[in-house]
Amino acid sequence: MIGLIVAGHGEFARGLADTVRLLTGELEHVVCVDFPAGMAGEELEQHLLTAADFMSACNRFVILTDLPGGTPFRIAAGLALRDDRFRVLTGTNVPLLLQLALSRTGDACVDELIASALAEARQAVMVFEVPKPW
Amino acid sequence: MIGLIVAGHGEFARGLADTVRLLTGELEHVVCVDFPAGMAGEELEQHLLTAADFMSACNRFVILTDLPGGTPFRIAAGLALRDDRFRVLTGTNVPLLLQLALSRTGDACVDELIASALAEARQAVMVFEVPKPW
Repeated sequence: MIGLIVAGHGEFARGLADTVRLLTGELEHVVCVDFPAGMAGEELEQHLLTAADFMSACNRFVILTDLPGGTPFRIAAGLALRDDRFRVLTGTNVPLLLQLALSRTGDACVDELIASALAEARQAVMVFEVPKPW
Repeated sequence: MIGLIVAGHGEFARGLADTVRLLTGELEHVVCVDFPAGMAGEELEQHLLTAADFMSACNRFVILTDLPGGTPFRIAAGLALRDDRFRVLTGTNVPLLLQLALSRTGDACVDELIASALAEARQAVMVFEVPKPW
């Protein structure tokens, strides 16, 4: 099974997970890791590893972070460099988390799932066009 | 001035605003509107209008919603159809809110700002590629 770890500055992770929970009901194998002001990078890394340990039914993990270059992204990327159970995404929005949470199955190819979820998430970033009068 | 209203299911709005506040410090003219379970659409619309009234220095508003087709998006789009002070975005991620919050100025063209922020936000939705060994 693929475990999902949502990680971002402040209350990003719990806000996003709360939204998806309202839309789909309680999700299994999704863990939030907040990164509040004052937390050290080493501590955040430890929390990400603890989140993975917590999902004992999972052997692969996707970490969804808030923005490129931020500390959660950099710490997660460092983890992925050393441990190939982890993939790291960034620029996370609700459609990305929703798509990954609902499409993962036991034998799915994690890189294919990611490619498809990223495409869906990018398409969802859009403006509502007010129809022009005739 | 352009006012920003973040609106989504559950605690999406406050989670995102908390993240951006940690990254940039307190932001002016940004209001969060949560849409908890059990709230009616009419009440949400009223909260969006109250948020706009609250930002009395602003005459244009961008509503950043969580996902296409969700109630916050539909209610905001209905508002934009009747009132051309409003623009509505969806698939909101941290880079989208950050970019809009930091680039708006008094005389900016709101549609140009939106186009540029959307492009930036889409680019930020990505996977960290672990470098291949030589």
